[in-house]
Amino acid sequence: MYKYSSLFDFTSLLLQKMGFSADDSAACARVFLAAELRGISTHGVIRLADYFKLWESGRINATPKIRVERQTQSTAVVDGDGTIGMLPSIKAMEIAVSKAAAVGSGWVAVRNSSNFGIAAYYAMMALEHDMIGFACTNASPLVAPTFSAVPMLGTNPVAMAVPAGNQPPFVADFATTPVTRGKFTIAAKKGEKISFGYAQDADGNPTDDPTSIEHGGSMLPLGGDREHGSHKGYCLGAMVDILAAVLSGANYGPFVPPMMSYLPLLEQKSGEGWGHFFGAMRVDAFMPADEFKQRMDKWIKTMREARPAKGQEKVLIPGDPERENEERISREGIELMPQVVEDLEKIAKKINIKFEK
Amino acid sequence: MYKYSSLFDFTSLLLQKMGFSADDSAACARVFLAAELRGISTHGVIRLADYFKLWESGRINATPKIRVERQTQSTAVVDGDGTIGMLPSIKAMEIAVSKAAAVGSGWVAVRNSSNFGIAAYYAMMALEHDMIGFACTNASPLVAPTFSAVPMLGTNPVAMAVPAGNQPPFVADFATTPVTRGKFTIAAKKGEKISFGYAQDADGNPTDDPTSIEHGGSMLPLGGDREHGSHKGYCLGAMVDILAAVLSGANYGPFVPPMMSYLPLLEQKSGEGWGHFFGAMRVDAFMPADEFKQRMDKWIKTMREARPAKGQEKVLIPGDPERENEERISREGIELMPQVVEDLEKIAKKINIKFEK
Repeated sequence: MYKYSSLFDFTSLLLQKMGFSADDSAACARVFLAAELRGISTHGVIRLADYFKLWESGRINATPKIRVERQTQSTAVVDGDGTIGMLPSIKAMEIAVSKAAAVGSGWVAVRNSSNFGIAAYYAMMALEHDMIGFACTNASPLVAPTFSAVPMLGTNPVAMAVPAGNQPPFVADFATTPVTRGKFTIAAKKGEKISFGYAQDADGNPTDDPTSIEHGGSMLPLGGDREHGSHKGYCLGAMVDILAAVLSGANYGPFVPPMMSYLPLLEQKSGEGWGHFFGAMRVDAFMPADEFKQRMDKWIKTMREARPAKGQEKVLIPGDPERENEERISREGIELMPQVVEDLEKIAKKINIKFEK
Repeated sequence: MYKYSSLFDFTSLLLQKMGFSADDSAACARVFLAAELRGISTHGVIRLADYFKLWESGRINATPKIRVERQTQSTAVVDGDGTIGMLPSIKAMEIAVSKAAAVGSGWVAVRNSSNFGIAAYYAMMALEHDMIGFACTNASPLVAPTFSAVPMLGTNPVAMAVPAGNQPPFVADFATTPVTRGKFTIAAKKGEKISFGYAQDADGNPTDDPTSIEHGGSMLPLGGDREHGSHKGYCLGAMVDILAAVLSGANYGPFVPPMMSYLPLLEQKSGEGWGHFFGAMRVDAFMPADEFKQRMDKWIKTMREARPAKGQEKVLIPGDPERENEERISREGIELMPQVVEDLEKIAKKINIKFEK
């Protein structure tokens, strides 16, 4: 088990060695570690090696000039200057919150960015201001629209955080696909099949082969197939792509550049880098904040108290599993897979810093 | 086949007979008929009988004072005064558009309303202003959250409309369930089963029985089961319920009143009537409108030109099927089911107006 403080310091120091300022490095480290604490280890320190290699190959700008390119009283466009996704995302969410404080709501599109980690982190930045927060991002193409044989969209996650009173906040954060890609990797490693409804082969036929994506196949949108509403998952992924990328000036759809340095950059561009979209709304723009929070408490209680389906224990509120993870992992420490430890030890050696528990 | 003008005049006159002003009646008729033209006949004139009976039982206010209850520069709350859903929805979307014109975006929550018809109608009101439009609504409880045995949420549809240049606009409008309830009714009438993944029985077990809802069962959220991401469909339905009802002051979750006059009003309330949520964002708040529309044209073209899956003809853009319906139905006329004709003829006789082709 690794201590939060050790991994935080390591992440922060690694980023500083890449040339990020101390403040920027700490800000990014908080996002990486939030993923670990919430149990979303697919977006935690495992990704440091990817960012490091991207940086080595000159694809990440460690000294960005993050700029507001255009704005109105309730909107803005932020250019991330080709840096790590967390930095323009934090800045964009701060702008959204300050615009919401001034005129009720704030909406900020980001271009020229890269993978930002977990969407919930940014949506949750609104909570302490008694605001509802939104965050979504596009990503490298992995998902086939309904009736397409080829991937045209990323897993394009959406997050919304809503403050409550005595209850913990509502925090939804989900990819617009049935499962994350991580499930494919794990099944492949174990030699197991995946469920039908997750993927298709290179011709667009349903498949249970977890390696299908590596052989020209695609992930499927939420819904799985047309009969079960995959066109709705496709709509949702498309909505995210339009807000995050068409509207911001980022690369959209199949043009989003890869996060892996070993993959070549695409010849064709449709904008700059990855795109995100953020929002904040003051709840007291709609009703007194205390009244709203009481209503959320009652909403949460109502859902929690629904009679469970046979064989199920209870109905969960979005954010419950991650909060339970956070309580447990804060107490017990962070577990890393041997492969992750090995990768980070290699990097540590390379740049002459220590990687410790 | 019925002519648009005949059904429009009939709908408008029927509403006037219920006490709605001529302007309000025409405004509502446009929404009912838009559903018919777009081929969403489940939300067309078939619903007139439901509204008529609600009005007969004193549950619809035909002379509402629709009020803005609270506002900031970019947000508002509208009280529908217990009227038919279309009227406060049109007003709310007009407010959203005018706020977006002034400060970049506008977001309006509506309470004390009822069923508003098709969500796309309101989202599409933004298009002529070169704005992106949003609309969503809660609805009477039919859908069980993941792990719940009982329905706690409506089918809670979401719509987003995005202007393009030479291409037709992107118009997504979808319930947060795999299919609409209409599929259940049709299967039941034909004595057919429904697919697994659409519904569960009164204990929360998967079922293929289309009458399960009438026997204490529920519809399932988009995803169908936990393994295929139903918790994400549940998240989405919950997000709509929170924006449309917790934030507006409407009834949320299981407290949303029924649209059928023969169903008793619930003893417990959690607000006033049904809730909706609308939004508009000026695209030129983010980039010059022409540039955005060119980008959308290219986005649409890129998706359309994706290689189709084996056995499929082409990849569709959200809004394509409805626009094709609209072209065909505008030309050929509107087809009504015999039962709908019978119902409308009965009402026509009752209030002494003519129902004609």
